[in-house]
Amino acid sequence: MTLPVDAVARLRLIRTDSIGPVTYRQLIARFGDADTALRMLPDLARKGGRALVVAGAGAAEAELAALDAIGATMIFIGTAAYPALLASQETAPPVLSARGDLGLLERPAVAIVGARNASAAGTRFARTLAAELADHDLVVVSGLARGIDAAAHQGAMAGGTIAVVAGGVDVVYPPENAALMAEIAEKGLIVAEQMPGVEPQARHFPRRNRIIAGLAAGTLVVEGAPKSGSLITARIAAEAGREVMAIPGSPLDPRAQGCNLLIREGATLVQGAADVIEALSAFGGGPQLGLRFKAAEAAPLYDDLPADAGDAERDAVAALLSPTPVAIDEIVRLSGLPAPLVATVLLDLELGGGLVRHAGGRVGLA
Amino acid sequence: MTLPVDAVARLRLIRTDSIGPVTYRQLIARFGDADTALRMLPDLARKGGRALVVAGAGAAEAELAALDAIGATMIFIGTAAYPALLASQETAPPVLSARGDLGLLERPAVAIVGARNASAAGTRFARTLAAELADHDLVVVSGLARGIDAAAHQGAMAGGTIAVVAGGVDVVYPPENAALMAEIAEKGLIVAEQMPGVEPQARHFPRRNRIIAGLAAGTLVVEGAPKSGSLITARIAAEAGREVMAIPGSPLDPRAQGCNLLIREGATLVQGAADVIEALSAFGGGPQLGLRFKAAEAAPLYDDLPADAGDAERDAVAALLSPTPVAIDEIVRLSGLPAPLVATVLLDLELGGGLVRHAGGRVGLA
Repeated sequence: MTLPVDAVARLRLIRTDSIGPVTYRQLIARFGDADTALRMLPDLARKGGRALVVAGAGAAEAELAALDAIGATMIFIGTAAYPALLASQETAPPVLSARGDLGLLERPAVAIVGARNASAAGTRFARTLAAELADHDLVVVSGLARGIDAAAHQGAMAGGTIAVVAGGVDVVYPPENAALMAEIAEKGLIVAEQMPGVEPQARHFPRRNRIIAGLAAGTLVVEGAPKSGSLITARIAAEAGREVMAIPGSPLDPRAQGCNLLIREGATLVQGAADVIEALSAFGGGPQLGLRFKAAEAAPLYDDLPADAGDAERDAVAALLSPTPVAIDEIVRLSGLPAPLVATVLLDLELGGGLVRHAGGRVGLA
Repeated sequence: MTLPVDAVARLRLIRTDSIGPVTYRQLIARFGDADTALRMLPDLARKGGRALVVAGAGAAEAELAALDAIGATMIFIGTAAYPALLASQETAPPVLSARGDLGLLERPAVAIVGARNASAAGTRFARTLAAELADHDLVVVSGLARGIDAAAHQGAMAGGTIAVVAGGVDVVYPPENAALMAEIAEKGLIVAEQMPGVEPQARHFPRRNRIIAGLAAGTLVVEGAPKSGSLITARIAAEAGREVMAIPGSPLDPRAQGCNLLIREGATLVQGAADVIEALSAFGGGPQLGLRFKAAEAAPLYDDLPADAGDAERDAVAALLSPTPVAIDEIVRLSGLPAPLVATVLLDLELGGGLVRHAGGRVGLA
């Protein structure tokens, strides 16, 4: 796969502190390309009130070289190789490291996630189900964790599986899944948001979960506690309008509590591959299912952000901010300013370190 | 409890062959009372083309005496003692034999049904759940079968339980539940549609199931096969607009298949008493739940049936009938006759033995 000619410039933007997924996409939208955005960054940051340390070209080149050395590559958002369903998410990673069969990203996928401390029956069930779904040409996405995740990858190995890891694409975690990870790199695909070499930390796992949910037409939970990461993944899938499915279990089985809760909340109860395929058909399966994916809708972005905002607009927006997060829509409404102009002011403030973005399109003072 | 003064006349109508629940209610609606209907019956039957054998007064008096001898009584539809929710069903039994605490029929009830060959865990679960629901002043209705039914009755014994039996109110079935049945007669209530002394037969069980579903604000299935009687009861409850609930289980557990299927079809997944109470609150619980039952709606009946129909109308309706069941609505539409007049003709034909009523308000030639 060929990287875009401005890969280094894109990566420098992406790896610069305080440039998150939303900001990256807004910078590209505002300035047209990464090189221009890079040139404008110091000026923007000054307006926001602090000096910005832009990631260096050397570090970006080193990161690309490190991936190349292990046969991995980078997939930038806005390029053809970037998976369409994931791109439709507002917080989609601006770049993914990927190691293995990139063609898997073009096929319909289902996520199978669940408890690390899964029961023997649950583990076997996940493996069998994943194999059956792979037989139906569905790619199985999971998180390479112990228990259900590992079983799902194993079951789908022959048909196609994608492991989304919390750390770098080259970092083995958990240790007992080293051989599995190597096999997936060879027969399937490993995907990571973090830079190569990054050891996974607690805060990386929820970020990993949003990628799992974002890549798949639907997320299926096989065993899980009510407050587990698996349920977070399922809820992200639900918020993204994807199909959410769960395997039921006895109320007496603690591992079934999360799944039963999801079903009570509206998830589809599934008992086997046929139920999963039926549920995904409603969403829109793949060509092998005789169905079509819905065209992935572009995430809400401002295609044409104004290059600059005046002091009056900046002051008007700043006056509406406090440490308590507030919806951007609310700021637009209260300020009476056009939404693209508000976005530009917020971008300036963010790059200046004065603004923090919160979930659900809300912002607050840092 | 005092029987209505015309109890014998009512019972003679009810016990006459080819007078089913719908016909009984239509006869009362057409003629105003049982005595008048009894007098008109031979004439009606002649119009229908055959002689009708009306049940004798002696047999009716003997049935009442048999019940009296065991401390049981009869509850006729249209009297204050008849449970309102059941009366709202078109096919509600015209009379119930009842033995025990009739006051239980006035309280909000939940049905708990399930497999006869229940697991130990399922049986214990049903018993505990029934006890908790009884503690919340819900009467627990079930069918006195082995397994889940028996456990539900046992759990709710102190708070209040109603056993609906398939045979006569005085007939012990199944034999191993003899002691349980005696205890329910003493502390709870036994209800039967069949005459005393009638041994339960296969065709009585579906009829029993509709009474279980009809008495309760909601029906909960604890373990059950996809084609079991428990699922039939649940579907009757759903058709009657009652709450349908099921305890989930692993796809690997055959006893959970029916429950999981119900949940897929829209039943509420419940894991304990709190979930049941929440579900019933949506339906409208009892005063103890701080809620009200919706006023039971009268079943669709013709309050004012014409006493007679002309030959032309009779021929027009008869011409539309065949052995293939057809909806009465369809006959009304095709004949262009008023619905009450069609009902009168159908009643005459039925009493004459030429018509059979089928499920869903459909009729066909006998």
